[in-house]
Amino acid sequence: MYDMTIVLRTDGGKCLYEQIYEYIKSEIKDGKLLAGERLPSTRSLAEYLQVARSTVEYAYDQLLSEGYIESVPCRGYFVCTVEELFRMEEAKPREADRSERGEEAAERDSVRWSYHFSPHEIDMSGFPFGVWKKITKNILNSGNSELFARGEAQGDSNLRETISRYLHSSRGVNCRPEQIIVGAGNDYLLMLLEKILGRHVRIAMENPTYKRTYRIFKSFAYDIVTVDMDESGMRPDCLTGANVSAAYVMPSHQFPMGIVMPIGRRMELLKWAAGGEDRYLIEDDYDSEFRYYGKPIPALQASDKSGKVIYIGTFSKAIAPAIRISFMVLPQTLLERYRRNCSFYSCTVSRIDQRILNEFIRDGYFERHLNKMRKIYRAKQELLLRCLEPFKKKFEISGESTGLHLILTSLGDVTEEELLEQAGREGVKVYGLSESMVEEKKERDRFCALSSPGRRATVLLGFGGLSQEQIIEGMKRLQKAWL
Amino acid sequence: MYDMTIVLRTDGGKCLYEQIYEYIKSEIKDGKLLAGERLPSTRSLAEYLQVARSTVEYAYDQLLSEGYIESVPCRGYFVCTVEELFRMEEAKPREADRSERGEEAAERDSVRWSYHFSPHEIDMSGFPFGVWKKITKNILNSGNSELFARGEAQGDSNLRETISRYLHSSRGVNCRPEQIIVGAGNDYLLMLLEKILGRHVRIAMENPTYKRTYRIFKSFAYDIVTVDMDESGMRPDCLTGANVSAAYVMPSHQFPMGIVMPIGRRMELLKWAAGGEDRYLIEDDYDSEFRYYGKPIPALQASDKSGKVIYIGTFSKAIAPAIRISFMVLPQTLLERYRRNCSFYSCTVSRIDQRILNEFIRDGYFERHLNKMRKIYRAKQELLLRCLEPFKKKFEISGESTGLHLILTSLGDVTEEELLEQAGREGVKVYGLSESMVEEKKERDRFCALSSPGRRATVLLGFGGLSQEQIIEGMKRLQKAWL
Repeated sequence: MYDMTIVLRTDGGKCLYEQIYEYIKSEIKDGKLLAGERLPSTRSLAEYLQVARSTVEYAYDQLLSEGYIESVPCRGYFVCTVEELFRMEEAKPREADRSERGEEAAERDSVRWSYHFSPHEIDMSGFPFGVWKKITKNILNSGNSELFARGEAQGDSNLRETISRYLHSSRGVNCRPEQIIVGAGNDYLLMLLEKILGRHVRIAMENPTYKRTYRIFKSFAYDIVTVDMDESGMRPDCLTGANVSAAYVMPSHQFPMGIVMPIGRRMELLKWAAGGEDRYLIEDDYDSEFRYYGKPIPALQASDKSGKVIYIGTFSKAIAPAIRISFMVLPQTLLERYRRNCSFYSCTVSRIDQRILNEFIRDGYFERHLNKMRKIYRAKQELLLRCLEPFKKKFEISGESTGLHLILTSLGDVTEEELLEQAGREGVKVYGLSESMVEEKKERDRFCALSSPGRRATVLLGFGGLSQEQIIEGMKRLQKAWL
Repeated sequence: MYDMTIVLRTDGGKCLYEQIYEYIKSEIKDGKLLAGERLPSTRSLAEYLQVARSTVEYAYDQLLSEGYIESVPCRGYFVCTVEELFRMEEAKPREADRSERGEEAAERDSVRWSYHFSPHEIDMSGFPFGVWKKITKNILNSGNSELFARGEAQGDSNLRETISRYLHSSRGVNCRPEQIIVGAGNDYLLMLLEKILGRHVRIAMENPTYKRTYRIFKSFAYDIVTVDMDESGMRPDCLTGANVSAAYVMPSHQFPMGIVMPIGRRMELLKWAAGGEDRYLIEDDYDSEFRYYGKPIPALQASDKSGKVIYIGTFSKAIAPAIRISFMVLPQTLLERYRRNCSFYSCTVSRIDQRILNEFIRDGYFERHLNKMRKIYRAKQELLLRCLEPFKKKFEISGESTGLHLILTSLGDVTEEELLEQAGREGVKVYGLSESMVEEKKERDRFCALSSPGRRATVLLGFGGLSQEQIIEGMKRLQKAWL
């Protein structure tokens, strides 16, 4: 029988059974105890080691359950055949791989800029922490354990009810709560939409468009067709020729061009969609809350009488990106498909978060927050427009009606690259329009030829995340750089 | 010029500009104002209506921005060509569609059962609401607006650091925080994994297996191959023949069979995976925290020396399903692929939730909670086992080592359907093994032939969500039904 030379320590480190277990395991792993070899009986090993028999039994049980040893009735414990001592070279840990460095570099990069006119940043200083905290506390104080149980796949019905009322009153969207799917961000909802629409979709996008969505569709291996735009947005005549079954649009505020799609164009798109059984319009209504002049323009979905619009909205801009709550309104045909094929996907938003958001909207805090933020952003935009006065001799300014960025189009011969470089030298980061272009040069030319005379350099100036002081100082530097 | 017969009301309803705007809009929609027609100038209309000129300007601006009218410099405002008055029959609202009714029926169904031995329910009564609340309050009190800003795509690095430490100490998993991706539930992480592994994957699953994952893989249009199991789990020899590139396993506790995969079998699987460049094992470690005897068995990932295991863990069972936090550990090769192709997908978990969870684990509450729950579940299991004593003459009982359900296999000739029906008549819901079977009959026979002599009826008794009283009373009824 195998001779066990284990020395048990009682100095308060590992407990006895653990020491026995680990000793035997390592003996097996090191090939000192071979397959088929019999272990001492629990009684004899306990006597030998001067420990309680249950201690040894405990250690053996553990080895049994992990498959290192097996028990043969009336004969004892034997070492199992562990196929082979499977030790391949462990992959050498690298210092850090390239893409990690890339990210870090990008981060350092963003630190380099003194003034960052990002069109994606929002102002968090206006966030009603107090209210959010109060609602959260009340919900947790109610101590409702139901909140921690699995919820409905489409999102809690209370929240969906609240969203449908909000959408109706503020966006003109007509939908029943059953049509709404709550999800953790637009990216997730698009992934879910892929499961509903199917994997072979030929989809139209404007060019330039929202690059993140483009990347997501690319990752789906969707067949993306960029169709021409004019000053009203996507051209429906190009759509018909493109042989697509879906089109992604931002009718309330095209990113990045800032176009608000006029009603006539909307009707044309809806007519196109109604012209084929499986045609849909994906309406991304990402920032329509921040419209500064006149009444909010209703969503495209509001004009849809034939169930052709998939409406996607988010609270990332209106509340905060980190709360990760978006929603999608499905037309009836797709709702049925969702229920047939996808309703087993669990909801991706925690029920506590859903309830907080529900009360935040239901009790009027959301509306008040939006009104407040609209004022804040409008003041920033007005300031930026004032700062832009001297630029008007060299640039055309557009995109003032809605959203968190303005568009500057050069009237001169300067290139986009030159503008970015000149700004960069002053420590100012602005965004070139070409960053939102999604196809090779050919498409860009086509767009530019239509949307603006020649090929004028165009940059985006986002102001959501900047303070008034930062806007003033940043614009002073841009003046130095460009004028 | 068009004659405007609008009657403005000043009785405190809609404001003046809104009335003008809506009047003109409806005139256009109704075809009373035709495309190309000129509107009165703002000055003349203001005089005519006896309102301030700015009121009319405001109304026109709104119509302009929605595209109903256009402004021609030096000439005035004209009605746009709204392609056609596009009014199709509005889809008739149905009372409620079938699948909705189906869901309601299922809900009523679950109410019908007095005792529901679900293997998926957990006990929320032990949840440390107080601690969770305290942590949440502290985090919100710190008032850090950074928390509401967009976070890292893979999840906040603090949480990933904490998870990697936890995984190492409790599951033997070796990983750097960079390898971890935090996501809102396993379903989401599998969707993300599809984007990493690609859309054409031939994947092996045990049979029976976890039905939810099966459905998800089906929705990916993955080519699913069920491979035979024996008492150690998935058979690697069948794997080689099946020509698959991935295999989905639950080595710590196979659902539903309760098999803990022995080390020998694990090594064989790892060897299979190492035998092909693009072969991977997906390890779903869904409930290994609730192991009642001996030390926790390390994860399969812990034995993986060649970067072949994708490890997926969740806090749904260990904390609560509603918090929607899972994580995935990618081997280096797939991590690189993720960074190349998928890193633009935003994280699906809110940063506040990530921070709460981070502190919950970091400050030791999670471990204490697990210890407490392990005791609670163990007590329930022991009670259930005592209640099962009289069943032993007719049933074989298995699956005691881990998890929240036991397995009863009939020693007699009764069928699964008969067992379910007999239980149902007493108001008790138990789960038949066939609910976890994923392929047609042929596969089932093959499995049964290997795993148990003949085709014995097998049911699952979940106990996680039941109180001790419910277990006692439910088992009394089952005794009446089956013995």
